[in-house]
Amino acid sequence: MTRREDDVFASSDSVRSACPLKHVRRVELDDALVLDLGGELTGVTVAFETYGELNADRSNAVLICHALSGDSHVAAHDAADEAGWWDVVVGPGKAIDTDKYFVICPNVLGGCRGTTGPSSLDPQSGRPYGRDFPAVTVADMVEVEWRLVRHLGIEKLLAVVGGSMGGHRVLHWATKHAGRVRGAVPIATSPRLTSQALAFDVVGRNAILRDPSFRGGQYYDQRTKPEIGLAMARMLGHITYLSREAMREKFEADRHQPKAVPTEFEKRFSVGSYLAYQGEKFVERFDANSYLTLSMAMDLFDLGDGPAALAATMSESRCRWLVLSFTSDWLFPPDQSRALVGALVASNKPVTYCNVASSCGHDAFLLEQDLATYGELLRAFLANINASATAKSAPGPDSEGRLDYELIVDLSEPAHSILDLGCGNGELLDLLLRRGHERLMGVEIDEQKIIACVRRGLDVIQGDLNLGLPSFADGQFDFVVLSLTLQAVRDVKRVIDDVVRVGRRGIVTFPNFGYHKLRRMLAEDGRAPEASGVLHYKWYDTPNIRFLTIADFEAFCKEQHIKVHRRLTIDSEAGSEVYDDPNLNADLAIFVISR
Amino acid sequence: MTRREDDVFASSDSVRSACPLKHVRRVELDDALVLDLGGELTGVTVAFETYGELNADRSNAVLICHALSGDSHVAAHDAADEAGWWDVVVGPGKAIDTDKYFVICPNVLGGCRGTTGPSSLDPQSGRPYGRDFPAVTVADMVEVEWRLVRHLGIEKLLAVVGGSMGGHRVLHWATKHAGRVRGAVPIATSPRLTSQALAFDVVGRNAILRDPSFRGGQYYDQRTKPEIGLAMARMLGHITYLSREAMREKFEADRHQPKAVPTEFEKRFSVGSYLAYQGEKFVERFDANSYLTLSMAMDLFDLGDGPAALAATMSESRCRWLVLSFTSDWLFPPDQSRALVGALVASNKPVTYCNVASSCGHDAFLLEQDLATYGELLRAFLANINASATAKSAPGPDSEGRLDYELIVDLSEPAHSILDLGCGNGELLDLLLRRGHERLMGVEIDEQKIIACVRRGLDVIQGDLNLGLPSFADGQFDFVVLSLTLQAVRDVKRVIDDVVRVGRRGIVTFPNFGYHKLRRMLAEDGRAPEASGVLHYKWYDTPNIRFLTIADFEAFCKEQHIKVHRRLTIDSEAGSEVYDDPNLNADLAIFVISR
Repeated sequence: MTRREDDVFASSDSVRSACPLKHVRRVELDDALVLDLGGELTGVTVAFETYGELNADRSNAVLICHALSGDSHVAAHDAADEAGWWDVVVGPGKAIDTDKYFVICPNVLGGCRGTTGPSSLDPQSGRPYGRDFPAVTVADMVEVEWRLVRHLGIEKLLAVVGGSMGGHRVLHWATKHAGRVRGAVPIATSPRLTSQALAFDVVGRNAILRDPSFRGGQYYDQRTKPEIGLAMARMLGHITYLSREAMREKFEADRHQPKAVPTEFEKRFSVGSYLAYQGEKFVERFDANSYLTLSMAMDLFDLGDGPAALAATMSESRCRWLVLSFTSDWLFPPDQSRALVGALVASNKPVTYCNVASSCGHDAFLLEQDLATYGELLRAFLANINASATAKSAPGPDSEGRLDYELIVDLSEPAHSILDLGCGNGELLDLLLRRGHERLMGVEIDEQKIIACVRRGLDVIQGDLNLGLPSFADGQFDFVVLSLTLQAVRDVKRVIDDVVRVGRRGIVTFPNFGYHKLRRMLAEDGRAPEASGVLHYKWYDTPNIRFLTIADFEAFCKEQHIKVHRRLTIDSEAGSEVYDDPNLNADLAIFVISR
Repeated sequence: MTRREDDVFASSDSVRSACPLKHVRRVELDDALVLDLGGELTGVTVAFETYGELNADRSNAVLICHALSGDSHVAAHDAADEAGWWDVVVGPGKAIDTDKYFVICPNVLGGCRGTTGPSSLDPQSGRPYGRDFPAVTVADMVEVEWRLVRHLGIEKLLAVVGGSMGGHRVLHWATKHAGRVRGAVPIATSPRLTSQALAFDVVGRNAILRDPSFRGGQYYDQRTKPEIGLAMARMLGHITYLSREAMREKFEADRHQPKAVPTEFEKRFSVGSYLAYQGEKFVERFDANSYLTLSMAMDLFDLGDGPAALAATMSESRCRWLVLSFTSDWLFPPDQSRALVGALVASNKPVTYCNVASSCGHDAFLLEQDLATYGELLRAFLANINASATAKSAPGPDSEGRLDYELIVDLSEPAHSILDLGCGNGELLDLLLRRGHERLMGVEIDEQKIIACVRRGLDVIQGDLNLGLPSFADGQFDFVVLSLTLQAVRDVKRVIDDVVRVGRRGIVTFPNFGYHKLRRMLAEDGRAPEASGVLHYKWYDTPNIRFLTIADFEAFCKEQHIKVHRRLTIDSEAGSEVYDDPNLNADLAIFVISR
């Protein structure tokens, strides 16, 4: 059974029968688990599934952390097996390639799909814990996962990957078990929930807690269970997992034609029958007490408020990061992922970030629609950390023939750190990487170019230069490069400010509008200048919106109290440096500047 | 008691005691009400309040339509009176000035604040209707309002104003009672709910319907009422009334410090105590059956899917429109107001639209924070329709000295319709208005400039020209003007396409970069050209991003198969037309073009 994307009822929730899954293994932890918020649990059992083979040096293990309602069955084990909740990503040849990696997916502590949780028998009373199950946190969950990983003979994971509440565990793994993780991939997650997301959780929990069948949590031996409350919480969850656009696509055309769902919930509208279906299905496989336990753990997860606190936490990590968010996710909005990225940048950690353009909302990371972006980033990132454990890339050529690149290579030593603003496909950074630079980073706005960079082994974060680089510290890089980008920038002052603030030296290259051929086009032909290269556009469709000459830039630097350390002016057609009246005779300028 | 904006518990809901309000008046309708969805109601009573005095010719009545949980008490009647739900807007000297206008605010049919609803006695059974209360629609609500208005001796309302579900009634009034309304102000509303908003309503209703105390709706004589379900529905509502930003401001700083609210709902978090408070307070004054009745009426409201259906409905109106939305409103998102505006534009109706920049979410229209914008628009709009009923503006001077304006005035007759793209403060349109043009419209992006236009009596819709003008029909205006705007436009092709599509003639004016002084600056000084007027900026901070000469524009027109009917080239320093080599000698060009 594969979920079809166009199925109106497709969702993050892999609806499956309640029959036990045959590939699930179980391990009982030896020692008692001392809990984060006090108390302890004994006889904790972990249910998990694995895929692929652990290699000889035990270096290819990828841990997958499921979200609130997920379980260990991340993918089908074979054609006869039931669908998993992340079949689109995990399997032979897929982004998390089980031919290469040993994949481990445990059910979470506090859950109800095999790992100890409120519905488990309390060894002390011989009855299910119910509400006597202690409050657990993300830290406790990760502790259980770590004990499982160690039990499997693994000391260091190649990567920990997870979305939503699974992303919270990734963040905890990478910061509190820092030496045990080589790569961290938090997806559609946050340092802590927004107040809005928290509010939805509160309403969901109230629906369960105030369902008369809840009976203070001891309903396991009762005829009725708090199924109405749990279904209501689930309905609410499903609204928040979808974007408004996705809901429109699913339900607008037939808004007054509900599906025939057997339910006592309202089904006057198409979207109502969907919610009723999701609610009714969920109660078949999920326990209300687990829902309370897990949603509270998620709500209590808190890496700190404000950039400083967050940077202090993230600075504990010692791994490489791939952070992914989705543009239409309003439950874990992209700004929260950007806060994580900012904290990593501020503490000088290697991080790649992409805010994947998507209409699917929070659910996007579980669906096929945007796989070409997020799946490819995941695949390339895993390949990079896998490769860095084994081989060092071969030294490359000194340049690719671009004069500005040659200069940058000339100016810098392999020990220098370099930030390339508007790094494109990463040609310059690739050159520097192969020359042995260890601290390189790019900022780029285009999703496809970011993928190209990650495929080259580079770290790049998605960003709009016009919005500034607030996360970057003063003097964080030896060089900040702005190469043939200035002429397309809206907020010139802010961008140049950032160049000379974040870089001890800035290297700025731009086309010179004072070049004689361009001058002549205006002066003699009376036409807007055009040329080859970045100036090959028409006046009405050019991405270039700033027209400056070398003299203009020099006046700007003077006015802004920016020092010019070096100026290289080039006639790129002739391929030579220009010494005579460069504002007239050079078509390309390269400035090395600082504050 | 006035609500303070900084009060963490401030909201759209004016929390008040259950004691009867002394200013409420009641009228019983003479005839039975035949309902939209079948059935009828007899003995319908309407509760309402009025403010100010009806003038002699009964032309100053403003009807205010409250939202789902509101009532007739729109404002305090005097200093000793309880606060109303819209005190910020309604009162002496306020935007809806009760010194000038006679304000009527009825409680809605199906409600529980004085007008007949499910909690009223069913004359047939002698018991409250409960779930036997028939399904009512927005049409039924408006029918009751119309009978009240007529009862008060008013045949035509100056304006109907309302937000959210109140906005739905405004839309119905203006289209189905078209001859009875001179001005319509739908605020934060929509042609129909989004599927997302619908989904929240479904969950809210399920919370009530499946509360065991609901008992099929006949709970009035029972010891317990469906208060848990109603409170849950209300909590959910409150989440959707606030924006994510507003929630962050209210609850992030003290997220772990809940207020001490007496409640059995969860209050682990600050936001939880807020929701519990709102839920607990609501059940004191609202009836669960009314909630079901009103929310279903809102969900069934549907002006049609798609621009054509919507335009067919909106074309029935014969009033002037002011449509308001708020940028952070995600329950009734601005796109839905734009759809209404588009339908009005497509059917050639006089409409002003502003998407007010706000962080307050759907609640914004009830709060003081953005009053300087939406209140001023409302005030000016009411003044315009009030004035148009009495006086005709005096003819004005022929121009304000701008040569391009003079030409436009010369080219056009008062019978001509004119659309001004990027109309700014409305100088040109004002000139034309005072000259007697009856069909004038502006498009402008800046909120303050829109206010200035409305104060001048103009109709202007907020829009970004780069996104196109899809609602405007081909040839809808005699002239479309693009005055000194082309050089600041990103998507030149689309904008010019629209000019010659929507206008039978387009008038485009722009600064000529081929002007000799500008050429010389680049050619001789080697500097980016600057000049007075629209070119007074530096290369790095100019809003002008397109640099074109007269020759460039002519080549563009040729390439795009656009006819040039007239070209006027001006030396604006000399104040004279240029005949000799205008590409060199004119600094301003005016083109009259068509497809």
